[in-house]
This record gives sequence, structure tokens and C-alpha cells, in this order.
Amino acid sequence: MSAATTAAGGTGRGIAFLKGHGTENDFVIVPDPDGVLELSADAVARICDRRAGIGGDGLLRVVRSAADPAARAMAGEAEWFMDYRNGDGSVAEMCGNGVRVFVRYLQHAGLAGEGELAIATRAGVRTARLTATGEVTVSMGRAELLPDGVTVTVGDRSWPARNVNMGNPHAVAFVEDLDHAGDLREVPPFSPAAVYPDGVNIEFVADRGPRHVAMRVHERGASETRSCGTGACAVAVATARRDGTDPAATGSPVTYTVDVLGGSLTITELPDGTVEMTGPAVIVGQGTLDPAWLVTALG
Amino acid sequence: MSAATTAAGGTGRGIAFLKGHGTENDFVIVPDPDGVLELSADAVARICDRRAGIGGDGLLRVVRSAADPAARAMAGEAEWFMDYRNGDGSVAEMCGNGVRVFVRYLQHAGLAGEGELAIATRAGVRTARLTATGEVTVSMGRAELLPDGVTVTVGDRSWPARNVNMGNPHAVAFVEDLDHAGDLREVPPFSPAAVYPDGVNIEFVADRGPRHVAMRVHERGASETRSCGTGACAVAVATARRDGTDPAATGSPVTYTVDVLGGSLTITELPDGTVEMTGPAVIVGQGTLDPAWLVTALG
Repeated sequence: MSAATTAAGGTGRGIAFLKGHGTENDFVIVPDPDGVLELSADAVARICDRRAGIGGDGLLRVVRSAADPAARAMAGEAEWFMDYRNGDGSVAEMCGNGVRVFVRYLQHAGLAGEGELAIATRAGVRTARLTATGEVTVSMGRAELLPDGVTVTVGDRSWPARNVNMGNPHAVAFVEDLDHAGDLREVPPFSPAAVYPDGVNIEFVADRGPRHVAMRVHERGASETRSCGTGACAVAVATARRDGTDPAATGSPVTYTVDVLGGSLTITELPDGTVEMTGPAVIVGQGTLDPAWLVTALG
Repeated sequence: MSAATTAAGGTGRGIAFLKGHGTENDFVIVPDPDGVLELSADAVARICDRRAGIGGDGLLRVVRSAADPAARAMAGEAEWFMDYRNGDGSVAEMCGNGVRVFVRYLQHAGLAGEGELAIATRAGVRTARLTATGEVTVSMGRAELLPDGVTVTVGDRSWPARNVNMGNPHAVAFVEDLDHAGDLREVPPFSPAAVYPDGVNIEFVADRGPRHVAMRVHERGASETRSCGTGACAVAVATARRDGTDPAATGSPVTYTVDVLGGSLTITELPDGTVEMTGPAVIVGQGTLDPAWLVTALG
């Protein structure tokens, strides 16, 4: 049964959606509390198509953990499961900017208040906190600095880059000027290539002030993006070490402000090695996918 | 008074919108029958922002001609005025794909039925016809073939290009393979440059069958786009002349199918030298811009 037959053919009422973003990483949010929608990869890609659909970097299906077979086993206390899909329809485990927007939606819909909240994701249960200002803090797991770095090259400039793993790999290069990263439409060459056989997210970082940096990122398999949550975490941790600071040694959390093209994130590294990300999450609008469009576009 | 104060601060109800497209030239449609919204260039740019807003190539404000000071003087019989803005907020005179989506919206909203309809635009009154299949035919004005052509170059290949004016300038080059146009992120060089001192839209055209061609286009001031209505008209007229056909000489209309990246358009040249474009127009979804977003984003 396709999404079209479920929601359009079945009820003729279309599918509810919202559009939202976190530091301009944008999402189509599809509330499906009872888990009745079957959104195929093709359906997700069509909804996320920026010209023929609504448009988004990805789709967040909001479903009760109890109503989803995949979530039920691992959700524990987490009432809600974030079924995150990439804009091309493929399944993804986690998205830090996505969790913030997911939590903001729950508040917007009256399904969650301020304070701590557990969210089930395919990468496990994540803890989030909604602040009074509307920003959202999300636990992002453990950052791991690995010893083997690479050299990243753009044009005739090269920089050494720190190797940081946030569940996904990052190469963090400190530069004098973010313009030196070039247009970042293509992935900058790095060597030795064997350090990242499956590719890497590459961050370029410039200082902005005490515990304040700005970054640009080339996301693996994509292009330059407006924001990368795990990238901002990797940047904060690599910058702390460069600055001679290590929460594991001092026992005190360290906080950095990381500016991305789409806004600003606050990253706190805790003495236990885990990282928290705080940032904005915005609902732009809400509506209904047209039933006739669902039938013709999603078949 | 900004859009935010008009619609959000004043009523707290947000602003209604729809998302639609014509051959993947996409628009945010804002119904404003009574002309109460004042959408500044900045507001339009924020709404059309693909990541921080809803996203669109442009915005179509739907207003009764009688309710708009600019339209009242020139609208004649045209009940509705298409207030078209580019995605960057600047005012534009006309957009062929936009008129189709505008008419499709009027039908969707129960404001127009099948048959002929006059639409006021900043370029004058255009006639449109809604077909039974949901496609829309729009009068696109007169095509003018000018004698002075240019040579267009991509990599180590060059082609002569016909100079066609559709109110805006087009250089139409016939190629063996559309891949020869390259990635079209930058405008291909043409000479002599003096033929188009303000730049030109460049179309690359390949044959697909009898009276059937496919095109790719670099739009002036932009990049490659999924569709260009005036470009498809220019291509059909240039191809007819290449094929030795001229409606002005034979007294019979000539119709070409022009495939664009975002779909397929049917272009008919009439004996009087005017051109009609027929193509799809799709409503994807409808909803409301969030009142809180309007206040913070549009201030």
C-alpha cells in the first residue's frame, strides 16, 4: 500500500506536512503518530524534490515508538521515534539538526513541553532538552580524536587536518580565511586517501574570538551544506584540543560557539567525552500535500 | 506595515500559501484577493529561500485587479492580477510557467473554470485557456527572429546561434547531443559580445523526432534551469525556420513539442507571428506560514 493509497485514495484528505529547519538544514516533517503511512524511498524523494515537490534536505516522519515495529524494540522510555530519511529517500540513522526540529515540532503540536525528552532514532535513544528560548539541546554521543590525520588541499594551499569520529568521520582543518576553502562544490583532495576509504566530511575552521570559531563544510556524498551538526561537534572538540583544553583532564565542561553558514550552534564537551549541541529549530509553515498530487506524483 | 504585522501581528493567523510548479519551475503562491498584504522584497526572498523558508523560483501573489493600484489601470477585463516576484524579491514583468500555475490555482480555488481567461500581468493582459486535462495554454506574445546571430562556445566546440526575441533575448544553438552543452553552471561564452550587451538566455537544442526537440537552457543572470517558457517558444520558432516552415507564409499554425529538463511543453506559432505555450501546472500542497515564523523572519 503506497502513501498515496493510504492517505489520498483512502481518505481523500492528503497528507499533513510541516516545513522546518535547524541552522538552515531543512526538513519536511510528516506527522504520523499511529504509523499508518508507508513512505517508500521514491515517495520521500518526490516530497523532498525542491522543484517538483515541497523540498527539503530530508524528511522526518513523527511516529509513536509503540506504533513502529523497528522502534518498539529499542525505544525504551522514548515515546516518539524519529524516522529520518535523506532527501534522496535513503534511510539514515541520525541527524543532529533533524532531532532539534523533531523536538520543536513536538512542542509546536502540544506533544511535548519544556525539559528533558528521550527520542528514539535508528542510532539509539537520544536525550533532548527544549529551552525557554525555543532552542533545543541534543546529546550527540562521544567524540573520538584519532591519531592519523590527513592533508587537505584546495588550489595551491594545503593544511593538516585532525581526524575526529562522531559516529561518522570528519577531517578538521584550521585555516586563516574561510574563503581559502574555495567553492566546495567538489570534495577537496586529501592524502593519504587510505585514512578514509569511504570518504570523509571535511570542515574548514577559522577563529572568530575566544572559544568562538566559524566553519564551512563539504559533506561526504553531497556538496557544501549550510550546516552539519556532527561537523560542528567535531570542530569544537578539535579546536579545544588545539587550544590545549580537555574536559576529561580538567573535569569541567568546555563550550564553544561554532558559526555555520546557516546560523550558530553552541557545542559543549563534557568530562565523560560526550558532546551536547544547542541550536535553533524553526517551524516555517504547515499544510497538506494535495491529494491529486499524491496520486499522480506518488502513484 | 510589513507582511508580518498585516497578517501575523494583526490576525495571528499566518499567511496562506500553496506550492506549485510548471515543468519544475516552482512557485510559492500567496492568495491575496483583497490586496491586503504588503510583501516587501525582503519578505519575498525569505519566503522563497529554499532552506530557511518555503522555497521557490518565484512568488505569485494572486490579487483582484480592482484591489491593486498598479493593475487597475491596465487590467481591462482581467479579473485577476498576477503579481509575480523573482525568488530574490525583485519585481518581474512576466513568467510563462508562472501564468500556467496562476491559472491552475484559480481553478483549484474554484475561482475559474475551463475555457478562456484574461490574466493581468505587468507585461500586459495575457489570455489563458484551461484544458480538460489540467494543462494550461498561455498566449506568449510575438517571436521576432533577428538577423544578427552569435557563435556560442562550450569547451572546444562552437555553434552558430539564432537570435530570437520574445520580449527577452534568446540565442538558440542546434547541437547533436545535449551533453555537449556541458554543466551550464556558468554562462557559455558567445561572440560577438556586442549583440547582447545585457546578456542573453542561451538554449541548446537537439532533435527528438518530427516537430519534436529537446532543449537545455542557461538563463541570463541565473544558471541552468529546469524550464524556461520564453526559451521553449524561441526554440520552437527557430526550429521551424531551420525546418523551412513559416506560419506567416503558409497561413497555417505550426506546433512543436519541446522537452525541457522538467517536463514537456507544446508550442504553437500562429500565422500572425504570436506564440502559444501549452503545458502542465501542478499544485503540490497548501498551508499556512507560521505566525511566529512570520514575526521573527519577516520582522
